[in-house]
Amino acid sequence: MKKIINQPENVLEEMVSGIVRANEEKLERLEDSYVIKQRNLNDQVSLVSGGGSGHEPSHAGFVGDGMLQAAVCGQVFTSPTTDEVLKAIQAVDTGKGVLLIIKNYSGDVMNFEMAMEMAEMEDIEVQKVIIDDDIALGEDESEQGKRGVAGTVLLHKILGAAARKGYSLDELAELGQAVVDNVNSLGVGLRGATVPEVGKPGFTLAEDEIEFGIGIHGEAGYKREKLQPSKEMASEMLGKLKEAFNWSDGDEFALLVNGMGGTPLMEQYIFFNDTLNHLEADGIQTPFRKVGDYMTSIEMQGVSLTLLKLQDDWLDLLNEDVDTIGW
Amino acid sequence: MKKIINQPENVLEEMVSGIVRANEEKLERLEDSYVIKQRNLNDQVSLVSGGGSGHEPSHAGFVGDGMLQAAVCGQVFTSPTTDEVLKAIQAVDTGKGVLLIIKNYSGDVMNFEMAMEMAEMEDIEVQKVIIDDDIALGEDESEQGKRGVAGTVLLHKILGAAARKGYSLDELAELGQAVVDNVNSLGVGLRGATVPEVGKPGFTLAEDEIEFGIGIHGEAGYKREKLQPSKEMASEMLGKLKEAFNWSDGDEFALLVNGMGGTPLMEQYIFFNDTLNHLEADGIQTPFRKVGDYMTSIEMQGVSLTLLKLQDDWLDLLNEDVDTIGW
Repeated sequence: MKKIINQPENVLEEMVSGIVRANEEKLERLEDSYVIKQRNLNDQVSLVSGGGSGHEPSHAGFVGDGMLQAAVCGQVFTSPTTDEVLKAIQAVDTGKGVLLIIKNYSGDVMNFEMAMEMAEMEDIEVQKVIIDDDIALGEDESEQGKRGVAGTVLLHKILGAAARKGYSLDELAELGQAVVDNVNSLGVGLRGATVPEVGKPGFTLAEDEIEFGIGIHGEAGYKREKLQPSKEMASEMLGKLKEAFNWSDGDEFALLVNGMGGTPLMEQYIFFNDTLNHLEADGIQTPFRKVGDYMTSIEMQGVSLTLLKLQDDWLDLLNEDVDTIGW
Repeated sequence: MKKIINQPENVLEEMVSGIVRANEEKLERLEDSYVIKQRNLNDQVSLVSGGGSGHEPSHAGFVGDGMLQAAVCGQVFTSPTTDEVLKAIQAVDTGKGVLLIIKNYSGDVMNFEMAMEMAEMEDIEVQKVIIDDDIALGEDESEQGKRGVAGTVLLHKILGAAARKGYSLDELAELGQAVVDNVNSLGVGLRGATVPEVGKPGFTLAEDEIEFGIGIHGEAGYKREKLQPSKEMASEMLGKLKEAFNWSDGDEFALLVNGMGGTPLMEQYIFFNDTLNHLEADGIQTPFRKVGDYMTSIEMQGVSLTLLKLQDDWLDLLNEDVDTIGW
C-alpha cells in the first residue's frame, strides 16, 4: 500500500484535523468528535449529512453557507455512530428543525434514524431524505436496495439553497424526496481503492479490464469488459440512464461527471465531452453541467455519471452562490 | 495504459472541448486554436498563461474574472506554439496591455517570448513574468535553471486580483517579479504519470519507493527513499524550504498543498496537517492555506508544497473573490 499517511488507524483523525485547519474561517469541529460544522449558522432549517469517510470532498467539503450545516465523518467506508449523528443534530438546530440527508446503506440509515429518534425525544424536530440514485443494481438485487452515490451532491446543493431561502422542514423533506425521485447515477471503475486499515484494494481488475456499475466502497458492478474508448463507456452508461429516465427529445437535465478520486481531470473532461455528444444527439438539454471530484472512493480510478431531471426552480437552486470548499 | 480516453492523439482537442462546453457561461475557445479565453473581458490589463497540457486545472481552470484572461493549451507536456500564444495576446488585449506568465521551461520561454515580440510589432504592449519556484534542483544543475511549478497558481491569483483592481502593466510586471522572488515549492512522487501518446509512465518507482523533488513532467528529483510516514515527508520538504527562505519565528506565509492528479484528498489533508504541525512548531504563521489539485501531472501520485512569503497586501489579493472553475 503506497499512501501519504502516518498510522492507518489515525487517518480519520488527521484528515478531519487537516480539513478544519485548512478552512478555519468557514468550519469548526465539535469537541471530541468527527463532526464538522459550519462556523456561523443562519436562522434556517439546518442540513446534516455524512457517512463513511473516503469520499472526499463529500461530505465535509460541502459544509458552508448555502449547502450543509454539518457533516458527520465516519471511519473510512464505515457508518458514523448514532452518538456522532446526534451531536451534529444538537449542534446545528436553531429551533427550525434539522433535515438529515442519508445515502442508502443499511448502517447509515440505521444510525441516522436512531439519532433522529433520540433528537426527537429532546424536542428537536428532525426529518430525513434517503437517496438511492445508483442504478447499477435493481431494487431487488440487494437487501438494502439501490445505493446512494454522486447524486447526493446535487441533492445537498438544491436543499441547501432552498433551506437558506427559508423553506420549512416539511417543504425541504418534500423537495428532497422529489429530487431523489428524479436523479440517477452510474459509475465505471478502472482500478480499485485501498482502505488504509485493510492495506489492499477492494477489487482488482486486469490491466485491460474495466467494470461498469461499481459502487463507491469497492462494491461490484454489473459487468466486466475489456478497456474501451471513452465514447463507448459513455454510450453504455447513457443507455442504462436513458432506460431509467425514459427520456424524450427536449427534456432538461443537470449533468454531473464525477471523478472517483484517482482520475485526472483530463480524462474526466474527455468523458464529459463524449457524454455531451451523445446527449445532444438524443436531443437532451443540459443547462447545468459540472465536472470534477465530488463523491470519490479514495484513490479509485473511474468516473460516474449523474443526471437529474430538472423541475420547477431546481436550476436556479443549483446555480445559487455557495460558500464551501468542495462545490 | 489504462485511461478514459479515445485516440491518444485526440486528447488535447477533446479535453479543451470538454472544458469549454462544461463552462460556456464563463469560457470561450478561440476559433481553430487551443486557446481558452474569459468570455467577457474587463477594461484592464489582461493576463495570459499556459504551457503544455496535463496540469489541469492549470491553466484553463484559472481563466475567469479576477485571475487569467486566457490560457494557451499545448499538447500534453509540450509547449504551445508561438502562433497560439500570439492569438491569445491579440484576443485579450483591451488596449491596456498584456502580461504573460511563463513557467520556466526552455520551450515555453522561447515560444512566449517570440509571441511577445510579434505582438509588439502590432503595437500591443506586452510584458512577461517568468516563474521558477521549484527548489528541487539548484540554479546551476540544469541548463534552463529552476522549474516553474505550483507556485504559478498563487502568482496567477495575486496578479489577477491586482489587474482587476486597475494596476498598470508596469506595476503588474513588478508585482509579479516580487512574488516570484518570494515563492518556493518542492514535490514528492509516489507513482509516475503516463503521457497518452507515449503509453508508459515517465518514471517508475518500486512499490516501497518515493522520490523527492520530482517535476511536473516526469522529471527526476534529487533523491529516492523508502516509503515513509507523511510527517517525515513533510519534514524533509520543509527542511529544504526553510533553507531556501531562511525563515524566522513569526514570518507569515501563504501555504499551498497541491495534489499531483492521482492523490486522493484524504492524503492531501493528512500531509497538510503534518505540514502545519511542523510550521507551527517553528513559529511560522500561515494566514492563507489551500489544499487540493491545482498544478497536476496527469495522474501522478504525490503532492507538492508551496510557500509564499507574504508582503504588502498580498494576503488580501489572495483572498479576493474570483470566478473560475479551478481556484
